[in-house]
Parts: sequence; C-alpha cells; structure tokens
Amino acid sequence: MGFEPSSRAQELIGRVEDFLRTEIEPIEGEIHTAIRAADDPWQPLPAFKDLQAKAKKQGLWNLFLPPSEHGNEQYGASSEEGLSNLDYAPIAELTGRSFLAPYVFNCNAPDTGNMEVLLRYGSSEQKQQWLEPLLDGAIRSAFCMTEPDVASSDATNMAATAVVDGDEVVINGRKWWSTGVGHPDCELLIFMGLTDPDAHRYARHTMVLVPRSTPGVKVERLLPAMSRYDEPHGHGEVSFTDVRVPAANILVGPGRAFEIAQGRLGPGRVHHCMRLIGLAEKSLELALQRGTTRTAFGKPLVNLGGNRERIADARIAINQARLLVLQTAYLLDTKGLAGALSEVSQIKVAVPRMAQDVIDMAIQLHGGGGLSDDFPLAAAWTSARALRLADGPDEVHRGVVAKIELSKYTKESK
Amino acid sequence: MGFEPSSRAQELIGRVEDFLRTEIEPIEGEIHTAIRAADDPWQPLPAFKDLQAKAKKQGLWNLFLPPSEHGNEQYGASSEEGLSNLDYAPIAELTGRSFLAPYVFNCNAPDTGNMEVLLRYGSSEQKQQWLEPLLDGAIRSAFCMTEPDVASSDATNMAATAVVDGDEVVINGRKWWSTGVGHPDCELLIFMGLTDPDAHRYARHTMVLVPRSTPGVKVERLLPAMSRYDEPHGHGEVSFTDVRVPAANILVGPGRAFEIAQGRLGPGRVHHCMRLIGLAEKSLELALQRGTTRTAFGKPLVNLGGNRERIADARIAINQARLLVLQTAYLLDTKGLAGALSEVSQIKVAVPRMAQDVIDMAIQLHGGGGLSDDFPLAAAWTSARALRLADGPDEVHRGVVAKIELSKYTKESK
Amino acid sequence: MGFEPSSRAQELIGRVEDFLRTEIEPIEGEIHTAIRAADDPWQPLPAFKDLQAKAKKQGLWNLFLPPSEHGNEQYGASSEEGLSNLDYAPIAELTGRSFLAPYVFNCNAPDTGNMEVLLRYGSSEQKQQWLEPLLDGAIRSAFCMTEPDVASSDATNMAATAVVDGDEVVINGRKWWSTGVGHPDCELLIFMGLTDPDAHRYARHTMVLVPRSTPGVKVERLLPAMSRYDEPHGHGEVSFTDVRVPAANILVGPGRAFEIAQGRLGPGRVHHCMRLIGLAEKSLELALQRGTTRTAFGKPLVNLGGNRERIADARIAINQARLLVLQTAYLLDTKGLAGALSEVSQIKVAVPRMAQDVIDMAIQLHGGGGLSDDFPLAAAWTSARALRLADGPDEVHRGVVAKIELSKYTKESK
Amino acid sequence: MGFEPSSRAQELIGRVEDFLRTEIEPIEGEIHTAIRAADDPWQPLPAFKDLQAKAKKQGLWNLFLPPSEHGNEQYGASSEEGLSNLDYAPIAELTGRSFLAPYVFNCNAPDTGNMEVLLRYGSSEQKQQWLEPLLDGAIRSAFCMTEPDVASSDATNMAATAVVDGDEVVINGRKWWSTGVGHPDCELLIFMGLTDPDAHRYARHTMVLVPRSTPGVKVERLLPAMSRYDEPHGHGEVSFTDVRVPAANILVGPGRAFEIAQGRLGPGRVHHCMRLIGLAEKSLELALQRGTTRTAFGKPLVNLGGNRERIADARIAINQARLLVLQTAYLLDTKGLAGALSEVSQIKVAVPRMAQDVIDMAIQLHGGGGLSDDFPLAAAWTSARALRLADGPDEVHRGVVAKIELSKYTKESK
Repeated sequence: MGFEPSSRAQELIGRVEDFLRTEIEPIEGEIHTAIRAADDPWQPLPAFKDLQAKAKKQGLWNLFLPPSEHGNEQYGASSEEGLSNLDYAPIAELTGRSFLAPYVFNCNAPDTGNMEVLLRYGSSEQKQQWLEPLLDGAIRSAFCMTEPDVASSDATNMAATAVVDGDEVVINGRKWWSTGVGHPDCELLIFMGLTDPDAHRYARHTMVLVPRSTPGVKVERLLPAMSRYDEPHGHGEVSFTDVRVPAANILVGPGRAFEIAQGRLGPGRVHHCMRLIGLAEKSLELALQRGTTRTAFGKPLVNLGGNRERIADARIAINQARLLVLQTAYLLDTKGLAGALSEVSQIKVAVPRMAQDVIDMAIQLHGGGGLSDDFPLAAAWTSARALRLADGPDEVHRGVVAKIELSKYTKESK
Repeated sequence: MGFEPSSRAQELIGRVEDFLRTEIEPIEGEIHTAIRAADDPWQPLPAFKDLQAKAKKQGLWNLFLPPSEHGNEQYGASSEEGLSNLDYAPIAELTGRSFLAPYVFNCNAPDTGNMEVLLRYGSSEQKQQWLEPLLDGAIRSAFCMTEPDVASSDATNMAATAVVDGDEVVINGRKWWSTGVGHPDCELLIFMGLTDPDAHRYARHTMVLVPRSTPGVKVERLLPAMSRYDEPHGHGEVSFTDVRVPAANILVGPGRAFEIAQGRLGPGRVHHCMRLIGLAEKSLELALQRGTTRTAFGKPLVNLGGNRERIADARIAINQARLLVLQTAYLLDTKGLAGALSEVSQIKVAVPRMAQDVIDMAIQLHGGGGLSDDFPLAAAWTSARALRLADGPDEVHRGVVAKIELSKYTKESK
Repeated sequence: MGFEPSSRAQELIGRVEDFLRTEIEPIEGEIHTAIRAADDPWQPLPAFKDLQAKAKKQGLWNLFLPPSEHGNEQYGASSEEGLSNLDYAPIAELTGRSFLAPYVFNCNAPDTGNMEVLLRYGSSEQKQQWLEPLLDGAIRSAFCMTEPDVASSDATNMAATAVVDGDEVVINGRKWWSTGVGHPDCELLIFMGLTDPDAHRYARHTMVLVPRSTPGVKVERLLPAMSRYDEPHGHGEVSFTDVRVPAANILVGPGRAFEIAQGRLGPGRVHHCMRLIGLAEKSLELALQRGTTRTAFGKPLVNLGGNRERIADARIAINQARLLVLQTAYLLDTKGLAGALSEVSQIKVAVPRMAQDVIDMAIQLHGGGGLSDDFPLAAAWTSARALRLADGPDEVHRGVVAKIELSKYTKESK
Repeated sequence: MGFEPSSRAQELIGRVEDFLRTEIEPIEGEIHTAIRAADDPWQPLPAFKDLQAKAKKQGLWNLFLPPSEHGNEQYGASSEEGLSNLDYAPIAELTGRSFLAPYVFNCNAPDTGNMEVLLRYGSSEQKQQWLEPLLDGAIRSAFCMTEPDVASSDATNMAATAVVDGDEVVINGRKWWSTGVGHPDCELLIFMGLTDPDAHRYARHTMVLVPRSTPGVKVERLLPAMSRYDEPHGHGEVSFTDVRVPAANILVGPGRAFEIAQGRLGPGRVHHCMRLIGLAEKSLELALQRGTTRTAFGKPLVNLGGNRERIADARIAINQARLLVLQTAYLLDTKGLAGALSEVSQIKVAVPRMAQDVIDMAIQLHGGGGLSDDFPLAAAWTSARALRLADGPDEVHRGVVAKIELSKYTKESK
C-alpha cells in the first residue's frame, strides 16, 4: 500500500544514499570549483571519471533501465533487473540532490532517454553500435529537436529536413538546446526532422542517428541557460548542412518520429520531476541549516517574520508534488502512457514551478550567499526554471491537462 | 500499491455513489429551496428524515467508524466492520459533494468526532446514554470549545471553567461556533473548560458531557458563517451560567481534555479535507459543464482567455491535495497520530485553500449565477473558507509543520 | 502635483469624515442589527432616513455629480459645484468604509450611474420626471441589463427585447442582478434590450425608462449575492412580459444603448473601486486593531508568524491600487473615457482582487469573529467578491487591457 | 497635477530617449557579445568609452544629481540644474531599459550613491580628491558594507572594524558584494565598519574612504550573482588586513555611518526601482513582439491560452508599481526621507518582485530563446532577483512597513 518501494529498490536506495554521502558530497564542491578554474571547463575531470568507475563497480549504474518487455536482456534490462518507474523514482530523487550524481550513475538526461529509445526502437545493429557504448558510459549523446527559428512548443512546427535519398538520408537545418553536445565524448546525435510535409501532422517527421563526426554537422555555439553553460555537457546550437547518413540510421522508419518521441516522454518526465524534487528537498535542507545557524535582530533567521510559514509551505508543496509524481510513475507502470497522459503533463506543470519557488525561498534565506555559487542554489534555480520550458512549456502541458479534462464533457474540438 | 481502497471499501463506495446519484442529487435542490422557504428553517424536513432512514436501511450508516481497537464491537465498530482511514477517505470525498450527504449517512461533523470521543474515552454509562442514540441518529450533539473572548487558536487560552465541586462539576463561561446546536434534536454538548489553572499547560482543561437541557445552558444566538446560518444545524453562541452536572459526566478525568482532543483530531481533519476535495471536484465539474455550454464572444466560455489553464491548474491542485490526504490517512492507519502529526497539519493548510481557489474559479466561470444560490458554489465557498479557521487557523497549522521540520535541525524552543 | 484634491474637495472630505465618525459609525452596528431583526428587513429604517436628512441638510448630498458640461446647472451639477473624478475619488473612498454611507449621501450604485445617464442623455421631460426625484432621494432606481439565460459578460448576447411598436415600446424578457429593486422606493427601471438584431453589433440595443409599476413587470425573486440579500436594496430577478411604455421613454433613441452605457462606465468604475479601497483600508484597520489587542501563544497576534508581512503586503497593495484609481480618475478628467479605456479596465481587475485579499487576511486575523457578522468583514468580502463579476468579470477586463496593449504591435484581429 | 515631469525634465527625457534609440540600442548587442568574447572581459571596451564621451558632451551626464541644498553648486548640482526625484525618475526608468545606459550617463549604482554621500557629507578635501573625478567619470567606486560571515540584513551585525588609532584608522575584516570593484578604474572604496561596540546600536559604525591601492586591501574574488559576473564592473569579495588610512578619510566622524547611510537610501532605492520598471517595461515589449510574430498551433503565441491575461496582468502590475515609485519620489521631494520611510520600503518590496514576475512571463513567451543570452531577459531576471536581496531583503523592508503601520495602533516594541 502507499508508494513504498520494493525491497530490491529499498536496498538500492540505501546504497545510492551511501554513495552520495560518502563519495560525492565530500568532493562535490571541489569538482565544481575545479571546473570553474579549469583552462578548458569542457574537459571532464579525472576525479569525475573515478566516481563513475566506482559507481559502475558497485552496480549503481544504469538504474533508470526499465524492466525488459522487449527482449533486451543482454543490455542489463532483464525483468529481474529493470526497475519499475515507481521503484526508480526515489533513486532519481536522490540523484537530483547533486548536479554530478545523474552523470556519475549514468542516469542523466538526455542519455537516458536516448538509451531508452534505442532499447525500444533500435535495430540490432543500431543497438550494438550505439546502445552498448552508451550503457557502458564510453560515449555520450544528444537529442536534436528544438529549433531556433520556429516556436518548437508546437513540435509539428519543426522545419529542419531529413530527406530519404536512395539508401541515404540527407539532413539540413538548425537545432538548438541540444543538451550534452558540448561534451568531448558526445558521439551520437539523435536528429528529428521533416520528411514528408504532406503526410498526417504526426507522420511527417523522422528520427535519424547521426554520428557527430559526420561531415556537415557543426556545433555553432554553446548556449547559456539562464547564464550557465553547464560545462562539461553544455547546450549546443547545431547546424546540419547536407549531412548524409545511411538510411539504416533511421529509427523504425520514415515518418515515425512522433510515435517514438511519445514512448520517450513518460518516464523522462518522471525522472526530471523526481530529480527536481530531490533538488527542492536539498534546497529546503539548506534553508533550514542557514535559518537555524544565522542570527539577525537577535533571533535565528528562521524565527523572523514569515520564515517559518514559508518553510511549512515548502514542505507541503514538496510533499504534494512528490506524491503526484509517484502516482504518475505508478500509473505508467500499471496503465502505460495512455493511462497517465494527463498526469505526465500535470507533473511537468506542477513540479518545476514548485521547485523554483522553494529554491527562491532558500536563496532569500541565504541572503547574498544565495545569489553566489558558494551554495548550489543559484544553479538549482536555473535548473528548475529551464525545466518550465524544456520538454514543453508549462502552457502546453496545461493545455494537455485541460483537453483531457474537457474530453469528458464534450466532443470537443481543440 | 498506491492508495486503492480495499475491496470492501470499493463496494461501499459504489453503493454510496449510487445513493448520491439516485436518492440525493435529484431532490437536493428542492430540499435547499424548501429550507429557505420554510417558516422555521431550523426544523428538519420530513424528506430529509426519509433519506436518513433509507441510508440506514441500506447499511450506509456510520461508515466513519474506525476499526475497533477498544472493544466497542457492540457499537458496530467491530474490526470486521470499521473502515480504515484510507478506506473511509473516498467515501468522505463522495459525501462532500453534497451538503446533505454527511447528515444523511450520519457521518457529519461534529457528531462523528463526538461519537469517536465517546467510543474511545467514554465510560460504559456514558456510551449507553449518549453514544447509542448518536449512532442511531436519534439525537445530535455539539462541541463547545472556541470562545468569543480569547484567541482560541491558542487552545490553552480557553477561559470558561469546569470546576469540580464534590460529585458535581460547575460550568461557567461562554462558547461560540458550537456547530449543530441549532438543531432541535441536539441534546448533548461536549464542553471543554478550565479546571486547574496551575497544572501543566496541557493538563488544565476538562471535557464534560452536558445535556443541553441542563439549567444555565443558553443558546444566546445562532451565528452566520460568512453570511450563512447553515440551517437546520447552525453554529451557536452558548452561555453556561452555574451549570451543574454530575462529576460522572467528566470524560476520562479532570485535566484530560487535551489528551482526548488530540485523539479526535487526526481522523476529523482527514474527514474534513476529503469532504472538501469532494466539494472541489464537484465545483470543477460544474465549471466544466458551464464552460462548455455557455457561449460568449462566439466561443464556449472554456475556450476564452486563461480558462483552460485555470481548469488544468484546478485539476492539478485537486489531485495533489487528494494524494496528500490519502497519504495522511495511510500514515494514521499505519503509524498512528504520532506518525502523522505534520501531515495532519499539512492537509489542514493545503486543502481548504485549494478548495477555496477552485471554487472561486468555478464561481467566476458561472458569472452572476455563481454568486447566487442557484448553484451550490456560494455555499461551497463558505464551507472551504470557514475551514481555514475552524479546527485551527492555517497559521497555527503552518507553525506545527515548521516546528516539526525544524526539530530535525535544532534542539529548538518555540 | 501628485493627486492631492482641490481645496474645495479637501473641505468636503473633512466634512464627510466628520459625518462618518460622528453620525454614522456610532449607530452603524445598531442599524445592521435592526435590519437583521426586523420582521420585514426590506423596509428602510427611520434611523436611516434621519441620516439621509442630516446629510442632505449639510450639503453632503449627490457629491458624485460631475461638473456640468451639459447645461444641467439646475440639477446642482453646475461647473462650480460638480467635482472632478479626482476630487470625488477620496470621498468615494470614505463612503466605502461603511455600507450605509453611500446611501446616506445619495451616492450609491446603481442610482449614481442612472442619474448620470439621465443627466447626460435624458430629455427635459425624462429629467423632470425621474432625475429630479432621484437627486432628491425621493425614489430609487435599478438597472436591468444582465440576463440569466446568456453569458452577459458579452453584452451583445443580451436577448430580452425592446421592440418599437408605433409610439410604444414593447418589452419582453428576463433580467437579473437588478440591484436596488428590492427597495420599496424603487420606482424606475432602466431596461436595456434588443431592438434590431440586424444592425451593427453595437447598435442593436436600446435603453428604455420603465416605471416599476408598469403592468407586466414582475420581480420574480430577490437573489442572494454570496449568501447576502443586502436588504433593503437587494438584487432582483425581474421578468418583463409584454410591458408597454411610451416610445418617449426611450433614452436618446433606438439602438443607442451601448453608446449610453459607454458614458456610464468610466466614473462608475472609479466609484466602485474607490469604495473598495475604503473598504480595504477599513479592513486593514480592523486587522491592526485585532492583531494588537488579542494575544495567543504569549504574543499579540500581529507578532505571530507572517502576520506582520501580511500587513505590510496589504499596505503596499492598497497604496498601489489607490494610486492606479486616482491616475484613472485623473485621466478621465483630462483625457475623457477614450484616454482612459485601458486604465478603467485595469482598476476593475486590480482593485476588487486586492480588496478580496486584504479582507481575507483581516478575516483570518479575526478568527471565528471574522466569519461572523460581529465585524463588517464577511459583508466586505462579499462586496469585493461580487465586484469581480459585476460590471464585467475580471477576464473580460483583462481582455480589454491586452487588446489595447497589443494594438501597438499589430493590426491585430481579435 | 499627477506625476508629470517638469518641462525641463521633459526635455531631458526626450533627449535621453533619443540617445538610447540612436546611440545605444543599435550597438548594445555587439557590445555584450564583445564582452563575452573578450580575452579579458574586465577591460572596458573602447566603444563603451566613446558612448560615455558622447553622452557627456550632450549634457546627458550626472543627471541623478539632486538640487543643491548643500552649497555644492560647483559640482553641477546647482538648484537650477539638479533634478528633483520626481523629475529624475522617468530618466532612471529609461536608463533601466539597457544594461549599458546607467554607466553611459554616469548614473549607475553604486557610484551615484557614493557621489551623493560625498556631496552631502564629504569635506572639501574629500570632495576635491574623490567627488570630482567620480563626477568626471575618470574613476569608479565601490561600497563595502555587506559581510559574508554575518546576516547583513541586520546592518548592526557588521563586524569588520574601523578603529581610530591616533591620526589613522585601522581597518580589518571581510566584505562582499562590493559592486563595481572589478572595474580597472575603481579607485575608491567606501568602507563601513565597527568602531565602538559599546555605543548606541546605531552609533557604533564609521564610514571611511579607502583608496583601493592601500596596502592590505585585497579583492579575493569576483562573485557571480545568479551565475553572472556582470563584467566589467563585477561584485567583489574584499579583504582588509591592517589597512591604515588617515583619520581625515573618515566621513563626518566616527560612529556616524548609519546616519550617512540613511541619507543615501531614499533616492538610491527610487533609482533602483525606476530602473527595474524600465526593465520590466522593456521585457513586456519584447514579450509583445515575440508573442505577435511567432506562431504555434496555428495562432500567434499571444492568442494561446492565458497569454493575453498575463500581458494584461503585467501591464497592470507595471503601472501600479510605477505610480508607487513616483509617489515615493514625490514624497521624498516634498517631505524628505522622514516623510517617505514606509514608501521607500514599500517600493523596495513591490518593484523587484513585480519585475521578476514580468520578466519570467516574457522569458516563458520566448521559449528557449528566453533562457539564452540572445535576448536581454535572462540578464534582466538576474538583475531583478538580486534586488530582492541587495539593499535589504524583502523581508526586512516588509518589517519596516509593518512597524510603521503598527505604530499608529500601539506603543509597540519591535
């Protein structure tokens, strides 16, 4: 009853917690400082690679993988091993407490989503070539969907092209917010582009696997997200000029991109939201620590003005948000995406906003320190804010929730 | 997994739903109209008594009763029969959709709380005299705690006195917001007053069973709550002037009032909050019906401006609130009040505010109709608003949540 | 500079303040109690009539009248006497502090708007017959526009008919929220109805003066607004069945209703908003009085939790709202309605919401007392809430503001 | 009447507007790009120096200077030349539309505040040495008040010391958020430190003029404010180790720091707030441009969901905030700081929050672009967010407003 994790998940949660406390937290500050001080912050640090090796060795690796319903046992996603969404959720929450952790455990976006896509939709060859090294952590990947020149909140606006030309696909256009493309190990781009403008609205686009080294692929620049470049992963603007790859690099088939994207959405949003809940929880902890140890006007900060009420409101908001995400995970597990469509959009609206507000409160309690990088709050804020746009802006998700709500009342048009 | 009700609860939920749809909803409007038109709106209508008789006959009666841990099998609260908080919660939600339903099913506050108190803390004699007719629906009761002359949000402020004088208790003082006291069948008042001002802060007060007909008891007036008198139950201001009852009418013993009150709180707040969730859900339904059937500026209302976003936000808010209440019910069932103290206060803050906002939105979508009594929305709003003060104002509950949160960080004083 | 009133206005403000303090406030509570206790609360009390007589004698009467630009000197609206919107605004604020005051000074809606309409658009005969007794306070009037069967937020939806038939007009249909129609002195209804469905959208409707005693006029019922009937004025639902009045009762001419309504809007909304600011200011004062004189947990309420912050926020919100209304009044005075269209809608959105929030805060600080009628807060809340729908819902006014904002950027369609 | 600027101010406003449109806006983007691309972003660009020279030549220079009440005519602050707060306010709003403009016109914080301090409180020698080159734009200055080790929201917490030792002052301690200290021309630090811990709470601290080149002064690091370093001005953490300067460098006298700080506050906060209003106004314009030119789901963005309502709310919020700041400026001009204490704190609470919300809305309408630096929105957001802490956190200012509000009701202690 309730949303308690299985005993296997419980054991993993305990080990992830230990790892965070003993391996990551003690050196996290140093790593961030080292990145900032580095001549080239886009080179991953050896200390970071060491952490990955330790996590892998302890089996705290690729925990995001779902139970295998697709015969992917050889990739570690056997039904014995894969965790349900509900079981993985608390692990995602824990990894969200640290900006390093998702990478340390090979559980970071967009690689997780890309691996899921390959797992579910990739051919044997595609899996062998790309999924294996991704699962191994040997390479990184990016997802090239959003475009600078159109309102990409309406994904059918996407204008970059993927034209089948004999046994090749020719790719042209410009993408941005290709997260991870700044990393030197990023070797795979999953590109989504327009193939058949005359097909049904949701059958026009194709997903193609594009090796980053293909001629015509150019990372034009790396973009700051609310002033942060998020090195060494980064967010890129990428141009594709007459890029040619074999037609065998198409995922599933031409015009199938939306179908594939659908399958990627549910768990990905649960992961994002659970990580944000971890971040909000961490921020509340920092607020409590600061508020109980600093003094102004003769009292601990926490006893001034409305600070206690804000702490209570933060607790209430976090708890409500977590339950909604767990419920969504549970629905995904038991009813599939079709049974959780509204909820997946609900969490995407509720959680980033909640996190942004909780973090804002924590910043305020930290005074000037909260604005600096001496605490992870400024970075946390950025992360929550960006998620109100990434993966669909709040407004689009509210539209989805409303549409489903209204469908009970009317044969309603849009 | 999740918060699904047991199969027994599921079956009861279905029957309550049917009863609401077939027995209550078709005549609800008429009953409210009849009350408003009555010469004496404080006389319960025969139609209402008929509904009670039907519900009782169908076994949809006293469903709020907890599983018996106290040997109260003879009162229907056998472990086979009593529902857990988690199982009763969806029934409470259903009854909250109608202002009549809680009374029809003998599941209305404050009688439920009073019956629970008698069940847990009453002597055999007290149970026989008062609990039996209450369970039977033959009489009604009120709870006399809040006082007009002190800030009762701090319950230790209570100044009305219950002085033990030999084998009698002498009661003096003034109470208000004694809900239910306007009903002609109200025969029992549970009075809470100061007995020993020198005892520990939480051991000064005593609970006494006071027959309403005792000399010196006077209902001074009936109070409107945000302009509604809520006939035929009402909220009374009651004066006690040298009221004498046998010392045997004391519950448990002198100075034990806070201890008893504690035990009454958890389930009572879950009930209140679940009923409000039912009310919010009903209000959202009304908003959707109105919004899809009325037209302005050439479109259904729901397609104007931010209306769809507001509907989405309402759905998200209701779902989050419901999950938090279910989680609280689950904690009460599995860890007792001590394990759910923060959550009980969390729901008391979150749910009435959420309901008030959802109802406000629904009113706005109904235009002038929303302000009138042609829809249950104005009454719904009052109900939610009052709950932000009744049973402890939001601010006090936020204080409890913050205190618990802070206790992890500091040996903090208040 | 700034928004200081003229010296003449300053003098009137002082006298209105004195009148409120010495004549109205001391007996206001008694009057409300007397209304509630009356056998027939719809009969105005002698005490109230006495107050009107005093105010009239002191020249604190019809102060809402604008400077005469229309040769209406005989009605007291000479340019020497009429106050600008900016000068009247602080008087309106003062009258808003008391529910009686607007009536005592003959400055209450909808009579003020109706008098303005007659002043500006009435023929000499219409003025003599209706304006004179209204200015004198001998009769009351109502405005019949909103309809129960259509979304009246889109005024072009209005479906009740005013058909010219020779030298008569035939009126049919149903109106509601006809405020003031419950008063025994209400003799005039200004009816707005559809005359020519084929004309331009804003030229279809006509305003007609309908004596309440005309055969076919029936007050079907009086409506509670958020549970209050607002006796002795009330809000009525009125049916019109083959009501015939002379064509001479048409205001200006057939199809001119929207044009007339326009002229009525600006000042009326400034009045409503300034009265609400007075009500918010009064509510804040009550909150401060209660908060400094009641004690809980060993402190004055005001020093608990976030109460001081809420008081600061209320002060900031009231001040901002007042400045926006004064600026709107100033624009109306200097640039006319065309130069203040956006601002008139801005205040209509901002002020009732602000007042509702400030009053809600004050209620919360009053505990159970705030819900009762022992303080004017429950009634104040109703008044603010209703204004979020009356005279156009928030959503419609936000639409106006946005439309004007967008007009700078685009030849925008609707 | 109203808050219209004087004709002299009107003329200046027009010229500042022209300068912004023709000189700054066309090259603003390039300058920001050049700073980001520079090997050393801390070196001011020649293009920027050129702009300053042009502005100076046109007399658009030091416009922040108040009318001289202190015989400072020689510094250009003659009563003929100095602008009242109300007259300068719209100019400050204009400069707030561009991050460069305040510097171009020599009207940027903290130099303006520092110049005002020298103007009002400096000796002739101090003025000659520091004020003249500051007014000339030849040097820059910083203000060293906030400390990393104490909650500086309570300024009496300041622990860095300024000890008088014969004819010298010895300074020790650590300050941060010393804005402007990153600039190569920054030559003056105004340091505020503890001199006499036994004096009255507000007479313990001293302000000292410290040349940046004094031995013992060290800029330990430059701090990011919500991830931005704001080159080439920056925010520094500065250590002072046995720094010795002549006692003649003390402003006014030992223990007079709070007195001086007071005088600096009012106008400074009006400037900050008006600049933020300019920034909010600019952000709303960008939102409208983007919203009318981008299309999704077949409509311009502005016609989707609640976007129009959000635009209306932004307009209403900006207008209310501007009026409150203008009113505050007017009070400062007519009643001095003592007559505007509450208002100065009111704007400090209301305006940054308003600006943060409006900018957040504009970001959301820009999608991914809003997160990037392709639009000034991410930087605008940072600026508004930081102002909720800089110059006193919201919570402290709410406390001031509440204290003043309460002072009418009670001889209240804090």
